[in-house]
Amino acid sequence: MEIEALFQLSYGLYIISTKKGEKANGCVVNTVMQVTSNPPRISTTISKDNLTHDLIMETGEYTVSIMGQKVPPIFIGRFGFQSGRDIDKFKDTPHELDSRGIPYLKDGMMSYLSCKVVDHLDVGTHTIFVAELVDGAVFPTEDEAMTYAYYRKVKKGTVPKAAPTFRG
Amino acid sequence: MEIEALFQLSYGLYIISTKKGEKANGCVVNTVMQVTSNPPRISTTISKDNLTHDLIMETGEYTVSIMGQKVPPIFIGRFGFQSGRDIDKFKDTPHELDSRGIPYLKDGMMSYLSCKVVDHLDVGTHTIFVAELVDGAVFPTEDEAMTYAYYRKVKKGTVPKAAPTFRG
Repeated sequence: MEIEALFQLSYGLYIISTKKGEKANGCVVNTVMQVTSNPPRISTTISKDNLTHDLIMETGEYTVSIMGQKVPPIFIGRFGFQSGRDIDKFKDTPHELDSRGIPYLKDGMMSYLSCKVVDHLDVGTHTIFVAELVDGAVFPTEDEAMTYAYYRKVKKGTVPKAAPTFRG
Repeated sequence: MEIEALFQLSYGLYIISTKKGEKANGCVVNTVMQVTSNPPRISTTISKDNLTHDLIMETGEYTVSIMGQKVPPIFIGRFGFQSGRDIDKFKDTPHELDSRGIPYLKDGMMSYLSCKVVDHLDVGTHTIFVAELVDGAVFPTEDEAMTYAYYRKVKKGTVPKAAPTFRG
């Protein structure tokens, strides 16, 4: 089997955020997609190693911030390569709050979605969350959505170990 | 809610194929992603309206053919906008067979994956299939993977009603 056949699958890049009590946290994923249109639902796959995963399991609520190509690299470093168990990722990150008080990013992003989990599936090291949309907005920008291919090729970006697409 | 916020999610384009007895069929989806790396597993979301959906439900086996940007448009028309209930989609389509005899396309494709369903989740109008990899190969080509954004923008492509991203 040529496992490289997997590397031609296409993705975007997203910051998933959630909040439980006073603890807000977020992480970077490439695994968001719309799965139904009526009603509009999305799926989001997150590693069980991520604090964000556990917080969403407990609260059932999260936001998706959809990255543009010009996203400040510091956001990817902070949300993709550091753990919310060690730092407060939102402390020095400009952000907005959705109607439930969950943070999302606007700088460098294309749009955001507020999501409420309606089901989930355990797939081993990761969980697929299925969520309905609570809210969402498009930000005024001339930027284009960041794809995973663009991030790796143009931005020379590396991938955290918790990513499903990590090449060990 | 600005539902347009969903339109910034990124996808590739794929032909999903399966076979039950003598009946082979396939359809176009944009909803394939790797969900774990150890072991490598992918998810594939398919409309319950598609014959391919029912055949995979019954057999638990399918292939993913990953489209390149130069894929012949006739393949998208045949597999994306016609039903296997009306025509034999593979009759005039050049194809290969995987180790189980399930067809996949090579012309205009980047790579293919042979998949075996290990779990699935009902998400309403669609089902998310989770599959482990049985086999896969990368094809020799200078082409790049077709993204959904490229298909819509450059190819001026339209979207079947069964797509999760159909804009009614």
